Amino acid sequence: MELEPVKTFLGATAANKIQPGINLVGICYDGTTSFRPGTRFGPDAFRDASYGQESFSPYFRTDIEDKKIYDLGNLPQFTSRFDRIQECFAELVKEADLKKSKIITLGGEHSLSQIPVSHYLKTYDDLVVLQFDAHADLREQYLDDPHSHASVMRRIAEAMNEKQKIVQYGIRSGTKEEYNYMESKGTLMPNFKALYDFLQESKAPLYITLDLDFFDPSELPGTGTPEAGGHSFKEWIELLKILKDKTIVGGDIVELSPPIDSTGNSNSFAAKVLRELIAIL
Amino acid sequence: MELEPVKTFLGATAANKIQPGINLVGICYDGTTSFRPGTRFGPDAFRDASYGQESFSPYFRTDIEDKKIYDLGNLPQFTSRFDRIQECFAELVKEADLKKSKIITLGGEHSLSQIPVSHYLKTYDDLVVLQFDAHADLREQYLDDPHSHASVMRRIAEAMNEKQKIVQYGIRSGTKEEYNYMESKGTLMPNFKALYDFLQESKAPLYITLDLDFFDPSELPGTGTPEAGGHSFKEWIELLKILKDKTIVGGDIVELSPPIDSTGNSNSFAAKVLRELIAIL
Amino acid sequence: MELEPVKTFLGATAANKIQPGINLVGICYDGTTSFRPGTRFGPDAFRDASYGQESFSPYFRTDIEDKKIYDLGNLPQFTSRFDRIQECFAELVKEADLKKSKIITLGGEHSLSQIPVSHYLKTYDDLVVLQFDAHADLREQYLDDPHSHASVMRRIAEAMNEKQKIVQYGIRSGTKEEYNYMESKGTLMPNFKALYDFLQESKAPLYITLDLDFFDPSELPGTGTPEAGGHSFKEWIELLKILKDKTIVGGDIVELSPPIDSTGNSNSFAAKVLRELIAIL
Amino acid sequence: MELEPVKTFLGATAANKIQPGINLVGICYDGTTSFRPGTRFGPDAFRDASYGQESFSPYFRTDIEDKKIYDLGNLPQFTSRFDRIQECFAELVKEADLKKSKIITLGGEHSLSQIPVSHYLKTYDDLVVLQFDAHADLREQYLDDPHSHASVMRRIAEAMNEKQKIVQYGIRSGTKEEYNYMESKGTLMPNFKALYDFLQESKAPLYITLDLDFFDPSELPGTGTPEAGGHSFKEWIELLKILKDKTIVGGDIVELSPPIDSTGNSNSFAAKVLRELIAIL
Amino acid sequence: MELEPVKTFLGATAANKIQPGINLVGICYDGTTSFRPGTRFGPDAFRDASYGQESFSPYFRTDIEDKKIYDLGNLPQFTSRFDRIQECFAELVKEADLKKSKIITLGGEHSLSQIPVSHYLKTYDDLVVLQFDAHADLREQYLDDPHSHASVMRRIAEAMNEKQKIVQYGIRSGTKEEYNYMESKGTLMPNFKALYDFLQESKAPLYITLDLDFFDPSELPGTGTPEAGGHSFKEWIELLKILKDKTIVGGDIVELSPPIDSTGNSNSFAAKVLRELIAIL
Amino acid sequence: MELEPVKTFLGATAANKIQPGINLVGICYDGTTSFRPGTRFGPDAFRDASYGQESFSPYFRTDIEDKKIYDLGNLPQFTSRFDRIQECFAELVKEADLKKSKIITLGGEHSLSQIPVSHYLKTYDDLVVLQFDAHADLREQYLDDPHSHASVMRRIAEAMNEKQKIVQYGIRSGTKEEYNYMESKGTLMPNFKALYDFLQESKAPLYITLDLDFFDPSELPGTGTPEAGGHSFKEWIELLKILKDKTIVGGDIVELSPPIDSTGNSNSFAAKVLRELIAIL
Repeated sequence: MELEPVKTFLGATAANKIQPGINLVGICYDGTTSFRPGTRFGPDAFRDASYGQESFSPYFRTDIEDKKIYDLGNLPQFTSRFDRIQECFAELVKEADLKKSKIITLGGEHSLSQIPVSHYLKTYDDLVVLQFDAHADLREQYLDDPHSHASVMRRIAEAMNEKQKIVQYGIRSGTKEEYNYMESKGTLMPNFKALYDFLQESKAPLYITLDLDFFDPSELPGTGTPEAGGHSFKEWIELLKILKDKTIVGGDIVELSPPIDSTGNSNSFAAKVLRELIAIL
Repeated sequence: MELEPVKTFLGATAANKIQPGINLVGICYDGTTSFRPGTRFGPDAFRDASYGQESFSPYFRTDIEDKKIYDLGNLPQFTSRFDRIQECFAELVKEADLKKSKIITLGGEHSLSQIPVSHYLKTYDDLVVLQFDAHADLREQYLDDPHSHASVMRRIAEAMNEKQKIVQYGIRSGTKEEYNYMESKGTLMPNFKALYDFLQESKAPLYITLDLDFFDPSELPGTGTPEAGGHSFKEWIELLKILKDKTIVGGDIVELSPPIDSTGNSNSFAAKVLRELIAIL
Repeated sequence: MELEPVKTFLGATAANKIQPGINLVGICYDGTTSFRPGTRFGPDAFRDASYGQESFSPYFRTDIEDKKIYDLGNLPQFTSRFDRIQECFAELVKEADLKKSKIITLGGEHSLSQIPVSHYLKTYDDLVVLQFDAHADLREQYLDDPHSHASVMRRIAEAMNEKQKIVQYGIRSGTKEEYNYMESKGTLMPNFKALYDFLQESKAPLYITLDLDFFDPSELPGTGTPEAGGHSFKEWIELLKILKDKTIVGGDIVELSPPIDSTGNSNSFAAKVLRELIAIL
Repeated sequence: MELEPVKTFLGATAANKIQPGINLVGICYDGTTSFRPGTRFGPDAFRDASYGQESFSPYFRTDIEDKKIYDLGNLPQFTSRFDRIQECFAELVKEADLKKSKIITLGGEHSLSQIPVSHYLKTYDDLVVLQFDAHADLREQYLDDPHSHASVMRRIAEAMNEKQKIVQYGIRSGTKEEYNYMESKGTLMPNFKALYDFLQESKAPLYITLDLDFFDPSELPGTGTPEAGGHSFKEWIELLKILKDKTIVGGDIVELSPPIDSTGNSNSFAAKVLRELIAIL
Repeated sequence: MELEPVKTFLGATAANKIQPGINLVGICYDGTTSFRPGTRFGPDAFRDASYGQESFSPYFRTDIEDKKIYDLGNLPQFTSRFDRIQECFAELVKEADLKKSKIITLGGEHSLSQIPVSHYLKTYDDLVVLQFDAHADLREQYLDDPHSHASVMRRIAEAMNEKQKIVQYGIRSGTKEEYNYMESKGTLMPNFKALYDFLQESKAPLYITLDLDFFDPSELPGTGTPEAGGHSFKEWIELLKILKDKTIVGGDIVELSPPIDSTGNSNSFAAKVLRELIAIL
Repeated sequence: MELEPVKTFLGATAANKIQPGINLVGICYDGTTSFRPGTRFGPDAFRDASYGQESFSPYFRTDIEDKKIYDLGNLPQFTSRFDRIQECFAELVKEADLKKSKIITLGGEHSLSQIPVSHYLKTYDDLVVLQFDAHADLREQYLDDPHSHASVMRRIAEAMNEKQKIVQYGIRSGTKEEYNYMESKGTLMPNFKALYDFLQESKAPLYITLDLDFFDPSELPGTGTPEAGGHSFKEWIELLKILKDKTIVGGDIVELSPPIDSTGNSNSFAAKVLRELIAIL
């Protein structure tokens, strides 16, 4: 009989520092969320919901219990000090080798993605950041905050060298200026085929940032800025079938807002999305 | 710094009478709702939800801020006096020229549609009323009320001259009698192609009445009489692509019931549906 | 004016024993539910939600009021005594002729299905149990309970003779062992075509057990262990079109958990699923 | 084993006409509700919630199963035809002797009270209508409807002869005009002692109309127009201890709005309030 | 920076076996809950809610961080095997000295209390079990289950020797038989003074079983069988002021049902109730 | 017939700058909320809920429509830029005379109070800030943010001269350090009498900061950090009866979190609290 108040994702091993293998790290932050807050409760929701699920992926015939997965819990909480979260994350990865340890950050809001990405950009000089999202997130700034969730991809773009690249898929909301930006930079994949072709050709290491509002709000209602006309879980599996043969070095899943969806189904959905992502790593 | 307790849809201009251009008018009425009430809170929900959205439509590459849109707020509330709402609406349009001013009425329940339609029928003697809906709404009467939401299209049909016409799409619920009526009158478009063909040929001015239960309850849960097997937001965009080249003279969007959907996503969905409709006007 | 505190499904006739025709029997039991309980409230939710619906099926052009349908209410409630429910059900069917009376059991959790099935297996020695479900439900046991919902199909398999057979469709969750079992026994229909082909050839009497988590959680959120990537109402209609010409001798619809979905739409969805099933009987 | 889809309040006997004894009649109407609708679901909520309660009142050491209580279910539903409800109620009581049969009407909104009261006023020419309520409900009319819930006590007052009288307790909301009216007519009991004194002296037959917003919204959140600063369940018991020795000839409990309170506790509260009222009849 | 996915109550030390000091043990079981289930989620809700609270009790001027408190997490989950939970608990306490280690069990439903109590009855032969509860819980059995929550105090009474004793406070619901039992046995304290007097005289070791429906549903809505007319948090503090000087050897807090109360306030309330209980230990 | 999409509190006059009289200003900010966010939606909830209420206060026999009340809507929203809110507020009051214009700020979280208070401290050099609150809010800082809601009274204390003073009532949560601070400074009124005596003697101008968690969570569930054992609406009225004769120069009502309380009753409660405060100004 096993006791102790520990809750990890789908039976991952509890850990208190980055391990060789797959590492889950939660960040409970929604400080720039402009519409409906709540993603600070996201990381624990992945863990709680996983208790109603199998560790076996029937899509990839893989039991993720057979993989080396570590759950490090959550970073200390800060409500308004983005800089302090940056410092904590830096401390966490300081002694880790990101070429051996894959980190999947669980949000929290999308602005957080720039934190792990900044470390991955230093590690892989040809990194491709593959963004699944409903929103372009390319504003210069938003509500006078340069670290807003609505600017995160702009900040990431600014931090990139010339070999590094953003690829966007699922975008269906933005300002005219953001759409102009995407067009001039060629970051937006207009359809599945364009993405498929890109991935077929590219050999670059991939960082995946998945804003859960990529999915249709009917399947994942629990997110703060829902956008009708999104993608389905079945399409996610199709995407993973392509990504399975690529070099994925890290990623994040953000914008799960548990208080919004009282059914709890969004949490289950997100946990399954994560399980399948792990299944192909 | 702009202050004042004014809330308009997506930054429309506040107005207190009908203007040349596009006019939004809310009616907070659900007096005949037979199952689950709440659509009286619909009009304000369109406005509130629009604060989480962009004014730019990526589907039609249009920023609706570039259009002349006026928000007139809501008619005075009556809970049981349909006749008083009719009078108020009549007073509102008395000095307006419906050939220059397009009114989009925000419900409220579907029975309301007969009010603006009655004015449009007088203005355009070859008007086509295009109904997107899950329910036929063709009952002689319902619960002894001739102005019931379940009878609204019957009332509209009775008010039409021989050149005016009802066209129905999305219907998947009705009594045997209503289905017989639709068949004998030929109002029901059984599939997308039938609707497409009709619209290709017709040159008549169109009034669009959109009962939001036209959509699948998975995408829009916040409506009182949900009917599984409905249409999607993506299909709405396809429909608008056809309608874009037609002459739409007015319309209404009804049966949004905010209290039913605690996620608030139905409100966001409906606001986006309205934004895209405006984008093609 | 009709009075009396009686609530039947869609105007079915109230009855207190099994009648020749179609018989609805509720069982308010969720005693082994491991994740989120609440299906004990399922049976009454079918009845309540039916008040917002028509008795006419536009899909099969049938008014189910024209059929002989009886609603027997619910079995006495037991929270932890599965054996007592078995006894009560046995008492109910003791004097019924299952060749003339079709029983549709309304759950409650899936473990219940083994109760009516055990009687049908005695009545039809070539019975096919057709399972629509997200989960294999083939565990040896679960949480030390052999009558768990997660083991129900295993128990049914064990009770079958060699001519009787389980057919599974929609399964997308299970342990590695369950998937191995399904493959070695050939029970799992991997796609619609496989199911179609099987049904074309088979002449055996069919018992249908529908775990509502067969459907996608976006369409039916109100169930305890939702699994993304499920089936739609429209596919249900396609399935019924095939089943219409088969000999369906009984069935059950289980795992509706009304407390989970505060919109109430899951109840309406389930009631419509039941109406359409009745329409083809 | 008892079967049949019948649901009565706390094991009352199902009946289809008024019986000698205590008769419960539901009316599912909220047609003039001006703020948040939903009381149409009230009557069934009393019944459903009673399944979690004992029939024994520890306050009055009485098991209400020992009394003759009949549950007649609900009148037919009308959404906007108050006159049709009046007709149905009249039909129901036509052959009843209100001196032998006590009717407790379960709402539905407060405007309904004028219907049973109109019959009681004819039966008892010195009737006292004892109103427990947060709102005066004495407006001349509201939203142009003379039968509004906000006018119900005014209508009742107008229908009274000189010996009949309204007594109000718990009022804490009204217009200046309503407060002036109460003062000039002397209907408002300003505190418990005033009510106590009145009841000590009066020998008149009592009709009790209980608008559940009489209670504090903390104890009964499920009502449409909550008013802070209300009364408690413990005070209700104190009131019943006084009323126990009076001649109560009928009554109603109105304004329970189940959709507002997702805990369901308001339904349990209201059911217990009703149980205790029955306990002293 | 401290990482690891561990969640303890108010900063208690995580442990995997009983320690000298105060030990918290959760049991996620609601297998006999007859009305509305959900207490299986209770134990974790105490922990989660404690993150919004201080460790300092202003009522007793005590910081519970200064005490030796251990959180052992939850026992393995069983949905229907009460006997297996009994075995697990027995295994847990096998090597513990209950005279040095105080266990506070967090439910789960009330039937669980008989498990720790059975061990305490063996340890202290003059144990007084002090029950705070709305319900007598003294039925012979309920729904044919002798281990029902409605029978728990009866089972405990049966297990007692002549020196051991049950004392009940707050009871306001039961059958006539249960009230007769309480009277004949003298277990029920009819008011605060009676309890006070009893405690003044008694020197026996106390085990406290707190069914949270002891409290008024307005203050703690999140419980399955709410009973109006209950006690307040302020009264709890008054009770603890008396109990502070007594010998409390163990206890349990049961019947917190988080899914019922969507505000989460019931969890915060229960966590504070537990904090104050710990403050006086 | 009046149209236009304007929503003011209880029929206050819409305004776009500070007026002589009473001025309502909303600030939609919850940037440092550490537990459950949502107070950003507070200001509009006061307005929306007021539509279900009378403008007449029966407690003070005053119709607030007879007073000069202006509603200025909300300041521009910033999610993380407290300094920008300070600037906007400064701009708003720049040309106002705070001796003639009373501002009631509607929150938003409690950290906001330091903004209007900073202006009032400059205007009245003997200002007393009267804090009604459950929490001391006297931390040096919290989560590394000096402008945290948990530090607001500390910041205010630091900005005061020697004649200015903080008076705290209702506090029932804090760290040991905060309690030590309150004792050493003598700011905490331990009971009603102490507050009463203070107010009897003091002639200083009063600024009232009301954190709504001052009230018991049973009466006001919709707040982020509920603390059991709070005050009631009836006590609020008693407090206002004392304050009526004092010189109140401004105030704020903060920490209303509408998303937490799905009944909406917290909004109604808060609106009534505000109405009564206005009634005595």
